[in-house]
Amino acid sequence: PLSCPSFALSVRSLIEATRSFRAPRVAKGTRDTTPARMVIRERAFRAITDVFHRHGAVGIDTPVFELRDTLTGKYGEDSKLIYDLADQGGESLSLRYDLTVPFARYVGMNRVGSVKRYHIAKVYRRDQPVVTKGKFREFYQCDYDIAGNFDSMIPDADVLSVVCEILDSLNLGGYVIKLNHRMLLDAIMEISGVPPTKFRTICSAIDKLDKLSWEQVKEEMVSEKGLAPEVADRIWQFVQLKDAPPALLARLQSDEGFANLRAHTSGGRALADLELLFRYLGCLGCLERCSFDLSLARGLDYYTGVIFEGVLTEYGGGSITGGGRYDGLIGTFSSQPIPAVGMSIGIERILAILEVKAKKKAGEGRQNHTQVVVASNGAGLLSERMELCAELWKAGIAAEFVYKQNPKTQAQIDSALNMKCPFMVFIDPKRLEEGTVEVKDLSAKTKEDVTRADLIEYLKNILKV
Amino acid sequence: PLSCPSFALSVRSLIEATRSFRAPRVAKGTRDTTPARMVIRERAFRAITDVFHRHGAVGIDTPVFELRDTLTGKYGEDSKLIYDLADQGGESLSLRYDLTVPFARYVGMNRVGSVKRYHIAKVYRRDQPVVTKGKFREFYQCDYDIAGNFDSMIPDADVLSVVCEILDSLNLGGYVIKLNHRMLLDAIMEISGVPPTKFRTICSAIDKLDKLSWEQVKEEMVSEKGLAPEVADRIWQFVQLKDAPPALLARLQSDEGFANLRAHTSGGRALADLELLFRYLGCLGCLERCSFDLSLARGLDYYTGVIFEGVLTEYGGGSITGGGRYDGLIGTFSSQPIPAVGMSIGIERILAILEVKAKKKAGEGRQNHTQVVVASNGAGLLSERMELCAELWKAGIAAEFVYKQNPKTQAQIDSALNMKCPFMVFIDPKRLEEGTVEVKDLSAKTKEDVTRADLIEYLKNILKV
Repeated sequence: PLSCPSFALSVRSLIEATRSFRAPRVAKGTRDTTPARMVIRERAFRAITDVFHRHGAVGIDTPVFELRDTLTGKYGEDSKLIYDLADQGGESLSLRYDLTVPFARYVGMNRVGSVKRYHIAKVYRRDQPVVTKGKFREFYQCDYDIAGNFDSMIPDADVLSVVCEILDSLNLGGYVIKLNHRMLLDAIMEISGVPPTKFRTICSAIDKLDKLSWEQVKEEMVSEKGLAPEVADRIWQFVQLKDAPPALLARLQSDEGFANLRAHTSGGRALADLELLFRYLGCLGCLERCSFDLSLARGLDYYTGVIFEGVLTEYGGGSITGGGRYDGLIGTFSSQPIPAVGMSIGIERILAILEVKAKKKAGEGRQNHTQVVVASNGAGLLSERMELCAELWKAGIAAEFVYKQNPKTQAQIDSALNMKCPFMVFIDPKRLEEGTVEVKDLSAKTKEDVTRADLIEYLKNILKV
Repeated sequence: PLSCPSFALSVRSLIEATRSFRAPRVAKGTRDTTPARMVIRERAFRAITDVFHRHGAVGIDTPVFELRDTLTGKYGEDSKLIYDLADQGGESLSLRYDLTVPFARYVGMNRVGSVKRYHIAKVYRRDQPVVTKGKFREFYQCDYDIAGNFDSMIPDADVLSVVCEILDSLNLGGYVIKLNHRMLLDAIMEISGVPPTKFRTICSAIDKLDKLSWEQVKEEMVSEKGLAPEVADRIWQFVQLKDAPPALLARLQSDEGFANLRAHTSGGRALADLELLFRYLGCLGCLERCSFDLSLARGLDYYTGVIFEGVLTEYGGGSITGGGRYDGLIGTFSSQPIPAVGMSIGIERILAILEVKAKKKAGEGRQNHTQVVVASNGAGLLSERMELCAELWKAGIAAEFVYKQNPKTQAQIDSALNMKCPFMVFIDPKRLEEGTVEVKDLSAKTKEDVTRADLIEYLKNILKV
């Protein structure tokens, strides 16, 4: 049968028919943002942007792809998750993996001495997506960073204040900001006897203490990473400590057992930094939100000072924001190093929470912003509906009409109710002659005859336009 | 010398030294959006979004990359400009080339019966960039489309009304919307004797009449595309026509010479469509902006009905928006065809014009939104400045302080003046004791002592927060 042309032809047409009916898809780990989700996203972005603006930040946007060289060597093991563009004869390009490295590239490239900027944009990671947990390959990040030479810990305190204000403004319930200092971790490891070559890998083991028990983490340190058990135990004496920042700081500053930490160059410097930081956080009113937690290590390589992570205490918990000081990164793009500190919010998890909340609340869920549906009573009156709509648009009022020559009255009412539009204006031949229209308040279920000439003022008044 | 290790070593260290000082770059044809440009972009996007909202549109976002299959066969010759992602073991992906095909994919995939949506997002084309003319490989498009079965020409008129409202709201000076109908072009070509296989290529030659003379276009038709000269001349009898829509329509509807056009199935249908459309555009108040131009052809393959293009008459002219009806495109993603009409605004050219205008205007050019700089007079008073800022933030006031322990008074004033901040609040030890602060209006150059307890209300009042 394979040599039979008519059979081959029918197979081919079958394949083509199947193809034309095959449901289109989006790429793995991505999704469309529906109108309902767009409303929530835009509201959240506005609330977040308002906080950035209140703190005097400017917006900067960067291209979605960078030269591959720009991203190389910045993300450690996670570099394998970077999306590359195909070689189509030109430069080697990759999609951005975060917003921090493009920001550092921007500051270095433009020789910016100091800047406080925010950036809300999509980043790309070829990670295993877990769509049910809101983990995608394309997702938004909201970043806020301060680069430049300032007095110690002042920008760090401002960044943490921004984190708290954003979480407060989004009404996500309780949260804790865990704080630590990379230099303190370095000192702890050195004091405990970790060889310098193992700092990073032991650091990443410590970082797992929020998910694993000490026994499990110690097992990893000893069996997988070849640390002596007594070294691991010495680390544990430190990293099990967490408390309100002033309380734990006071212990580290005065207890006999931590004298070696205070005497250590990095350790002493970190404690001095944190003392300043906690004082400033007190002034800014966000110290109560913080927990000084010696087990916080953060994955990324480029942090050099204060590090932090924000964890929700409601809605299933979990980390939703993090950041810290990275004084070396910009220097890789510039002839001179510029210190910087910043934070990133994982907005997708927040949006997922806001979506669930929106679904529970009645009255939410409008997808468009239409304030008035202009309808005809009985006759078609398409020209009149169009003319009235154009007049409303000119006055800044959001208005629609049903796209039919002769729509039924009920169909027009249903259309307004479906979109949860608050008002309708009805025109009909009799009222047109009298020079009036009927304004219907769909939630109050009231109606009123209004003189056509007064309509715009009347609507502006009830709509507060 | 090539075998000398110390020379090789010094070459290597030289290369590495050069490398570490090599200025970082962005990918060819892309650019960063600076804070000054961000302010203009956000203002323009807000004005445009307001128009979309006034017309009842919902927002939809799609991923930046699509399965390659989704884009295949949609852009004709321009498909070679599509950016592909590298094969990293997974699906074949490409960056979106426009927002229309992803929209059609969305509607088909989600079996959306009807929707009116807007989408402002970046698209990607591996075109030769002309940075001086604002032509980039990554650029924003602003799209507005209506999909669904509605009465003829009503959505088309709404789309054109949106185009006019946007151009009006952006204050770009004069403009003309050129209108035509794909079926009218088809009829003209058939009547003139163009073989159906050459419709598309002749159509694209006609489209060049806005840049080339008829002699040049005819030469292309005859020499390059093998059309008989007398066929080309018959086309010219039609495509040289342009006039105010009602005037040209009346000629085509009554002149003896156009009887064959009226009798042609597609031609008759197109004329009936346009008669309705022009009536509706009259009702919506935007007919005066339009020119009925038989030479308008539009490049893209997928148009099936009304087509249009908006051309500025000031600022160097040029096309900045276009669109039309595409009744077949969604059907390629769906088991049933869904008609649609829409428009796309080339916002980059508009932003370039707005940037030039902003530079000319005094008083423009603020990059952040800070309303108050909180300063100390004489002493450092860092804690007090921080506490006051936190209070202002809580009240919704955008405030900053200089990130120094002991900043000079003049340095703080300079900082406020540099960012064009309208107000400053000064604290000093003497006033702190008296319970007052000094509020300085930087533009009016006035100052006033305000009781500390009344400060928030005072500022809210003058800032209208």
